[in-house]
Amino acid sequence: MTLIFVTGGVRSGKSRFAERLVQERAGSSVTYLATAQAFDTEMEDRIARHRTDRPAEWHTIEEPLDVLSALQVAPTPAILLDCLSLWVSNLLLSGLDEAAILARAEAVLHAQALRGGLLIAVTNEVGSGIVPDNALARSYRDILGRVNQRFAAASAEAYLLASGLPLRLK
Amino acid sequence: MTLIFVTGGVRSGKSRFAERLVQERAGSSVTYLATAQAFDTEMEDRIARHRTDRPAEWHTIEEPLDVLSALQVAPTPAILLDCLSLWVSNLLLSGLDEAAILARAEAVLHAQALRGGLLIAVTNEVGSGIVPDNALARSYRDILGRVNQRFAAASAEAYLLASGLPLRLK
Amino acid sequence: MTLIFVTGGVRSGKSRFAERLVQERAGSSVTYLATAQAFDTEMEDRIARHRTDRPAEWHTIEEPLDVLSALQVAPTPAILLDCLSLWVSNLLLSGLDEAAILARAEAVLHAQALRGGLLIAVTNEVGSGIVPDNALARSYRDILGRVNQRFAAASAEAYLLASGLPLRLK
Repeated sequence: MTLIFVTGGVRSGKSRFAERLVQERAGSSVTYLATAQAFDTEMEDRIARHRTDRPAEWHTIEEPLDVLSALQVAPTPAILLDCLSLWVSNLLLSGLDEAAILARAEAVLHAQALRGGLLIAVTNEVGSGIVPDNALARSYRDILGRVNQRFAAASAEAYLLASGLPLRLK
Repeated sequence: MTLIFVTGGVRSGKSRFAERLVQERAGSSVTYLATAQAFDTEMEDRIARHRTDRPAEWHTIEEPLDVLSALQVAPTPAILLDCLSLWVSNLLLSGLDEAAILARAEAVLHAQALRGGLLIAVTNEVGSGIVPDNALARSYRDILGRVNQRFAAASAEAYLLASGLPLRLK
Repeated sequence: MTLIFVTGGVRSGKSRFAERLVQERAGSSVTYLATAQAFDTEMEDRIARHRTDRPAEWHTIEEPLDVLSALQVAPTPAILLDCLSLWVSNLLLSGLDEAAILARAEAVLHAQALRGGLLIAVTNEVGSGIVPDNALARSYRDILGRVNQRFAAASAEAYLLASGLPLRLK
């Protein structure tokens, strides 16, 4: 029933922090729910690098779009969802609009409130640079910002990572 | 006489936080000083969405450039200025250089120090991304950063918002 | 032996904060280790502006690449290194890859652990905007993020600046 929210910029140490946190709270009985999709070799390298960092005992579910179903079939109470930012990006690129994406986010939060387990949700800060020229990028910043706010509001604990160090938001 | 400074990335919940804060401190007797200008339908939508979120009793002044005069004619002691970042952008696009913009910021801070009321100033963090290719965007980051520093230094309270949650800076 | 880490977005007041901090801790006996290189007049202006802000008694070493040697020849125990972000950018543009840059960062941290003096290392947050189109920029965000994490982990104190105000990270 507990939701923990972890945000930060790229390469801020948020995934590693979340991995340590889930192990502290749930030991090695963890489902790693990955939303990343490898479209190119750069992304493949990034995913492979993350994978070798994780404990071998963890269960892994790779699900770029249907996080709700993945949550419902996860074999352990503790789930590490990494990350909301790629999930929202995948949904946006699959053609969903803001309302549909926010509805999916609400459905995941609702399902999580009904489950008994721990969910640690990792996400990205993408809104602290210059306004992008690209309309899709602006739309993505807006939608991800709203999804992040909803998850943060529903969380029991929230952290902002900077240079590998956590600031407690909540 | 009190200045409160609220900053954060885009869609970080800073406007909503500032709106709640001004209501806590001043009830419904609030002047909303909007610096946004609608150049296109995307901006019109954004402004309209923000407007419907605000209490109907509030006074609204729309002033993209002359914030000093707007401050002086505001009908209530409590003013919510949303936001410094669009104001600086409007001044820069109107042809003013850094020195002229900083002088205007100082004049607003001086006028605020002489007033009896509360001013909550909302602004944006725009300097935590990659250096933009565009010289105007680089200049904007620099000038807004300096204006933000001056307002933050003059403030009695300052907050950084992330995913809708406030971190107290001061 | 003490390392202090100072990060923040562009124009967040991090250099000024670090300058004040080094003076508080070490008086006027300070070596300013500058990694900036002036490629154009915009950068020259920026460097000149920073220089006039610093005390005249300080020693200055300008070294864009070989920070390790500069650290070893600095004439004072207290060193202000401004900044890691330009250093990493210079190394990347000189043709070094991620592994070579990380090895250099480790060598600096190792040399610092053996020295008796204070090192204040200033850096930039560049990973909180939209993913850049440019592959070199993405690579830079990744490498700088890792270097920042290593310095932050090795530090005795760490600060995140926003609008001129410090948040204590550690």
